[in-house]
Amino acid sequence: MSHTSKASAPKGRLGILTPGMGAVSTTFIAGCIAINKGLAKPIGSLTQMGHITTPDGKRQKISDVVPLQSFENIAFGGWDVHTDNVYEAAVNAKVLDRYMIEQLKPELEVIKPMTAVFDNSYVKNLQGTNVKPEKNKMVLAEALMEDIRRFKEEHNCDRLVMIWCGSTEKYIEESDVHRSLENFEQGLKDNAVDIPPSMIYTYAAVKMGIPYANGAPNLSGDVPAILELAEKTQTPLAGKDFKTGQTFMKTVLAPGLKSRHLGIEGWFSTNILGNRDGEVLDAPENFKTKEVSKLGVLEQILEPELHPDLYGDLYHKVRINYYPPRGDAKEGWDNIDIRGWMDYPMQIKVDFLCRDSILAAPLVLDLAIFLDLAKRAGESGIQRWLSYYLKSPQTLPGEKPEHDLFKQHDNLDAKLLSIAGL
Amino acid sequence: MSHTSKASAPKGRLGILTPGMGAVSTTFIAGCIAINKGLAKPIGSLTQMGHITTPDGKRQKISDVVPLQSFENIAFGGWDVHTDNVYEAAVNAKVLDRYMIEQLKPELEVIKPMTAVFDNSYVKNLQGTNVKPEKNKMVLAEALMEDIRRFKEEHNCDRLVMIWCGSTEKYIEESDVHRSLENFEQGLKDNAVDIPPSMIYTYAAVKMGIPYANGAPNLSGDVPAILELAEKTQTPLAGKDFKTGQTFMKTVLAPGLKSRHLGIEGWFSTNILGNRDGEVLDAPENFKTKEVSKLGVLEQILEPELHPDLYGDLYHKVRINYYPPRGDAKEGWDNIDIRGWMDYPMQIKVDFLCRDSILAAPLVLDLAIFLDLAKRAGESGIQRWLSYYLKSPQTLPGEKPEHDLFKQHDNLDAKLLSIAGL
Amino acid sequence: MSHTSKASAPKGRLGILTPGMGAVSTTFIAGCIAINKGLAKPIGSLTQMGHITTPDGKRQKISDVVPLQSFENIAFGGWDVHTDNVYEAAVNAKVLDRYMIEQLKPELEVIKPMTAVFDNSYVKNLQGTNVKPEKNKMVLAEALMEDIRRFKEEHNCDRLVMIWCGSTEKYIEESDVHRSLENFEQGLKDNAVDIPPSMIYTYAAVKMGIPYANGAPNLSGDVPAILELAEKTQTPLAGKDFKTGQTFMKTVLAPGLKSRHLGIEGWFSTNILGNRDGEVLDAPENFKTKEVSKLGVLEQILEPELHPDLYGDLYHKVRINYYPPRGDAKEGWDNIDIRGWMDYPMQIKVDFLCRDSILAAPLVLDLAIFLDLAKRAGESGIQRWLSYYLKSPQTLPGEKPEHDLFKQHDNLDAKLLSIAGL
Amino acid sequence: MSHTSKASAPKGRLGILTPGMGAVSTTFIAGCIAINKGLAKPIGSLTQMGHITTPDGKRQKISDVVPLQSFENIAFGGWDVHTDNVYEAAVNAKVLDRYMIEQLKPELEVIKPMTAVFDNSYVKNLQGTNVKPEKNKMVLAEALMEDIRRFKEEHNCDRLVMIWCGSTEKYIEESDVHRSLENFEQGLKDNAVDIPPSMIYTYAAVKMGIPYANGAPNLSGDVPAILELAEKTQTPLAGKDFKTGQTFMKTVLAPGLKSRHLGIEGWFSTNILGNRDGEVLDAPENFKTKEVSKLGVLEQILEPELHPDLYGDLYHKVRINYYPPRGDAKEGWDNIDIRGWMDYPMQIKVDFLCRDSILAAPLVLDLAIFLDLAKRAGESGIQRWLSYYLKSPQTLPGEKPEHDLFKQHDNLDAKLLSIAGL
Repeated sequence: MSHTSKASAPKGRLGILTPGMGAVSTTFIAGCIAINKGLAKPIGSLTQMGHITTPDGKRQKISDVVPLQSFENIAFGGWDVHTDNVYEAAVNAKVLDRYMIEQLKPELEVIKPMTAVFDNSYVKNLQGTNVKPEKNKMVLAEALMEDIRRFKEEHNCDRLVMIWCGSTEKYIEESDVHRSLENFEQGLKDNAVDIPPSMIYTYAAVKMGIPYANGAPNLSGDVPAILELAEKTQTPLAGKDFKTGQTFMKTVLAPGLKSRHLGIEGWFSTNILGNRDGEVLDAPENFKTKEVSKLGVLEQILEPELHPDLYGDLYHKVRINYYPPRGDAKEGWDNIDIRGWMDYPMQIKVDFLCRDSILAAPLVLDLAIFLDLAKRAGESGIQRWLSYYLKSPQTLPGEKPEHDLFKQHDNLDAKLLSIAGL
Repeated sequence: MSHTSKASAPKGRLGILTPGMGAVSTTFIAGCIAINKGLAKPIGSLTQMGHITTPDGKRQKISDVVPLQSFENIAFGGWDVHTDNVYEAAVNAKVLDRYMIEQLKPELEVIKPMTAVFDNSYVKNLQGTNVKPEKNKMVLAEALMEDIRRFKEEHNCDRLVMIWCGSTEKYIEESDVHRSLENFEQGLKDNAVDIPPSMIYTYAAVKMGIPYANGAPNLSGDVPAILELAEKTQTPLAGKDFKTGQTFMKTVLAPGLKSRHLGIEGWFSTNILGNRDGEVLDAPENFKTKEVSKLGVLEQILEPELHPDLYGDLYHKVRINYYPPRGDAKEGWDNIDIRGWMDYPMQIKVDFLCRDSILAAPLVLDLAIFLDLAKRAGESGIQRWLSYYLKSPQTLPGEKPEHDLFKQHDNLDAKLLSIAGL
Repeated sequence: MSHTSKASAPKGRLGILTPGMGAVSTTFIAGCIAINKGLAKPIGSLTQMGHITTPDGKRQKISDVVPLQSFENIAFGGWDVHTDNVYEAAVNAKVLDRYMIEQLKPELEVIKPMTAVFDNSYVKNLQGTNVKPEKNKMVLAEALMEDIRRFKEEHNCDRLVMIWCGSTEKYIEESDVHRSLENFEQGLKDNAVDIPPSMIYTYAAVKMGIPYANGAPNLSGDVPAILELAEKTQTPLAGKDFKTGQTFMKTVLAPGLKSRHLGIEGWFSTNILGNRDGEVLDAPENFKTKEVSKLGVLEQILEPELHPDLYGDLYHKVRINYYPPRGDAKEGWDNIDIRGWMDYPMQIKVDFLCRDSILAAPLVLDLAIFLDLAKRAGESGIQRWLSYYLKSPQTLPGEKPEHDLFKQHDNLDAKLLSIAGL
Repeated sequence: MSHTSKASAPKGRLGILTPGMGAVSTTFIAGCIAINKGLAKPIGSLTQMGHITTPDGKRQKISDVVPLQSFENIAFGGWDVHTDNVYEAAVNAKVLDRYMIEQLKPELEVIKPMTAVFDNSYVKNLQGTNVKPEKNKMVLAEALMEDIRRFKEEHNCDRLVMIWCGSTEKYIEESDVHRSLENFEQGLKDNAVDIPPSMIYTYAAVKMGIPYANGAPNLSGDVPAILELAEKTQTPLAGKDFKTGQTFMKTVLAPGLKSRHLGIEGWFSTNILGNRDGEVLDAPENFKTKEVSKLGVLEQILEPELHPDLYGDLYHKVRINYYPPRGDAKEGWDNIDIRGWMDYPMQIKVDFLCRDSILAAPLVLDLAIFLDLAKRAGESGIQRWLSYYLKSPQTLPGEKPEHDLFKQHDNLDAKLLSIAGL
């Protein structure tokens, strides 16, 4: 590369920490190890396989354009409410086939979750035994920071990133305790009820200057207090909620239908899934957090204010059904009632037989690798260029998130070229 | 508009001529009349409903940015192998509901098809009685030109455009007779077998400087001879094959899957349709023309040469089945076998319950309106910016067509801004 | 017929009364009139089109084997909370195409609903203006009986039947007031809250000896008090809940899968519909009534007690979603997770794009015609042979309903042969 | 059992021989071994899991009512054009997961295919190396009989059955050489072209009195010559073509739709599959054999002669597409265009994500066990009661096959009760 990147070179080892070591996290870790052993390919990962068009019109590998952490030199760790090591958790998750898991057993069984911060009132349908005994939220935050320091030393890491791979917490809205760093730290000390576990993890990471991405729709880093802290510690943030199956498809299809000015009268989305995530979402207060995240995407894409005849009366409904027979093999069925010439109705059905964790795993990897790049490039706060990976991209008050997958991809490419100094 | 458009203002009346006055053409005409009577809306038409982002970041109506022919001042005409007037043909086509058609009867029944140029060897499964008796192809071309002159005068038109809405002809490849205007005109005189009816229409239009778009996958204007003529007569051309249902969806979905670097192992597309188009395509030599058009779109989008692990072995199969129970209500069922992280398989099914003519009608309108704009802006030859509407965009030898719907839309917008002088 | 039927010959005119004159009822009535005018066929009706195998092995028309009311000599009437006549209600229901409705206007607009018995606490999402002002339930019952007498006289009917085509009421369970005729009549006088409107209609009909069928899952006739009355007045009863779309399919598919001993791990059924019925079911207490009715069918068919490995852990989930874009064109999507040899999973998806009222209308006709036959044959109480038409067949306490469509059909045929004296 | 069965008790060991040891046969064998080891269950098998209603109204296990061969005492063998042992063939077939196959390796790798009789002109898309060198068809038949004798001795079998699990041969019709045993044996000696390999296997089995079932649509045993031989040697026969996925569903759904007198305007069935079977069927002459088998089922069920308004114009189309990405995981997509009340159209889509060999394996087992029972009960010739398992049940000339799955099941039960002496 003859150009001068804004980002410093990645030296030494990167540690990737995941609060939550269930299906997504273990699939991510097992995959990275399998890929390093030549047993699998990092399909779905832009950092490993992607290309970008440089200003000279050439198609180049992203990893040749910006200085990314090498895939071979990564350490994996995290926290979970269960004590299962990653081998055991991967077997239980039933995402990967057993024949593959057995080949990775030695590497997986040595990765054991650290004791988690957990609060049953935020995730009703989950019980855990591997939970920190401390009751005070500030004490818990400090315990997490101590975990992180120990992990960094034991695994000889140069840098760290944290990616939330845990459950969806119950729905809460921003309140006073979230509105300034001062309020927030006081709230931690006072055990404020509005501070869920995910926010304690976020605080611990950002306090230490560790980039943080949030794969669930929890508020977590999406509050002024954490943004204030991120600016102070020069920490990049990305959130919220991995854009994996049905919403990913929605943000592909909606721009297509809108491009052609086909009207949309109704969009009905239903999901069946049976993994831990599905069980958690079976509680109405947790489903609400997810529903809000899933419902938001259409309006920004369709611009009903410009096209009232086409999208003014769109009826959008999202349902998630806990359905144990399916396990992690989530299925999203969409029915889209569209209108064409002279208002004639047509229908599109999309049945996406996906695998939740298989779709999420490369997102964990890309968010980790790109956040580490952002940190080395001196970025901090909300990383809008990573909206591409997220169902409900974080924005400043009054700012509209971009949901159109293609525009999100353009923004990601533009940022990479900018970091590359091109 | 304070900017100075490259296109002159549209004065007087525009005549839109369609060879083929079956389901597509009658749905288009009936729709335009219904819209003018306030009974329907021009859904699916960018020229009537679309917006564009001007350089100042504003979203403006396309019709406020470039000088388009007014919708109210259009005359409709065409040719067909059947003598049915447009009212009768619309009733038979069973696309529009009878209650609507009856409200348009007075306007529709006065539009009668002119006698067609037809050759049964090119469209085996169709019989017609309203066919010009002349046998020599040059004589037929001149008869068409005479038809056009008469139509223009009788309907008091200032300008004309021609949009092919006829059947798919049998598969032929470019041969000597198509390679220069001289060869071609000699071929017309000599009744060369390689000149199908659609090419005679194209020749007649382009010879008279009338913009021509080809809604079927027939070779028609996609040969050097017609391009040569188009340059000579300063005529814009657009072809081939309306991008309506399944292929439209494919060029929306494929860019989305590719963006995320999800592998594609197989893409199986099957169609059932029962209209005249379906009957014509039931003949293998006609199906081949359509199949070639439908198969081409994935490779350019997916760049298998850059991503052999993802798209190197893609198995792409397209089937069209004549199935009379369905009439014009075509259904396209796609199964897409994708691969994610660690090569795990997932599946996407798309069932598009569409209506062939409802999807095509606004494309007829937009192509007519935009080609007329191009003519007034001094454009001639292949109009690449109209690739957006076409399954198999015409290109020069060695040039790759753009198939990605979103890039096509960007190109369309860019051209409009350029014509607008912005 | 040389055999001697147990049923007397049908003399004169039959009146069919429907409480509820919305989509189902108007589609039924309009269809009967259209059929009588030669504009349509009674598709879906066994009484009009069906055959039966007589003991001599011949296939004969049902109407040649048992003495059925002639189709030409029927009067239609009913009650509704709206004042729309049947022409207006049919236009609003958007089930039938307008072109057809207009051809039936003279016959439809003279049929006007009688003033309804209605209680908003039982059907929250419905408002009505055409409601009887009386407040006492016994007084309301007597008013209905007066309506019936007047209708019979005005329309010169020999006999009557009543088929409930109204909404699904909120879920209630059998209580003391339903347990004897004495309690019930006292309850009517005392305005007992546990007596919903549908039960008042049922009481009125059965009290007058008029056969009654219940097309909704409401308790209505399915209580000891009504059974007691039915025996007293020698009145045949059939209930509950028309078996139309998704449940009809379920009782076809489940016997098939069970026949082959394919295991079923999960059955997920979701519905989208947007008619008045859908709106009513959007209230949780009304949905519960329907859900109980829909969930019951699998267990009796699959015999999990005999086949614990196959059906012991079946996870059965039914969802109904109010989705206005779809109107009466209900769609039922089923995902069935089956297990084959060695427990390997397979999946069946059934997408039924049905029309609620089109499926229900012939059931209204058949239930009316067959109940009238039953009455003339001296039958009274629960008509088990009509379970064929019902999602939740009424039984005596301790008795299991038959749900398998094929066994239900066998039972229906057996009863017809018995009535025929064959 | 106090009743006296017509069948003698099964003594000693039963040998099951399968010509063709590909996906179906290896899945069958591996499954039987896994079940015997307690690693799997015989799901889908009536002989192992099924119940029957005895005349006293009780539900009893079939194996308690008729004397069936014990599952533990079976030997497996067969022929194939490839030399792979059953372990290798099972790995290649990719039907069973590798983790399971490895647990069965010792038992599977000792089962090696005998050298096959093969003729490339009957199965174009298949090449084999493990093929008998003899050219004369009578010599080949004798070689097969010698194989059988050796197998019986080496595996110490008391009785044998043969189940064809090989490929679909090209379409042929009955001709002179098939019309008598004399012609046929002369044809074998003369190498008559109309005698395909499958018929040579059938001849060898039936000549030795070994019951034979045909899992493919090949003519094989469905000719007068073989029937003549079967009577002579007192051998039971069952054929043709395992009724597994799409056709199984069709014979469940069609009786259901017909029961309700819903009209059927069109039935479109398409399949994608990528196993060896799919490759063979990619050749048009082999597809024709399958197509004829698949198309026949609807007419007998629907009785269009009795219901011309409902089924008189049914358009039935079946497509099979070779699609390698899918392997053995065949998918059948059906679109059924039905008509209801007043001729209103509705649609049913069935997407069956099945596994070809998983569905076929228990049919191999049941046909083997039941044919052995038939032999011991003194039955010979066509076993109509086994039509339940077959897409295209063999009949005598002029006789109509029964296709309705439920009637087929009734016939099977009736025969079992008869054999049981009940």
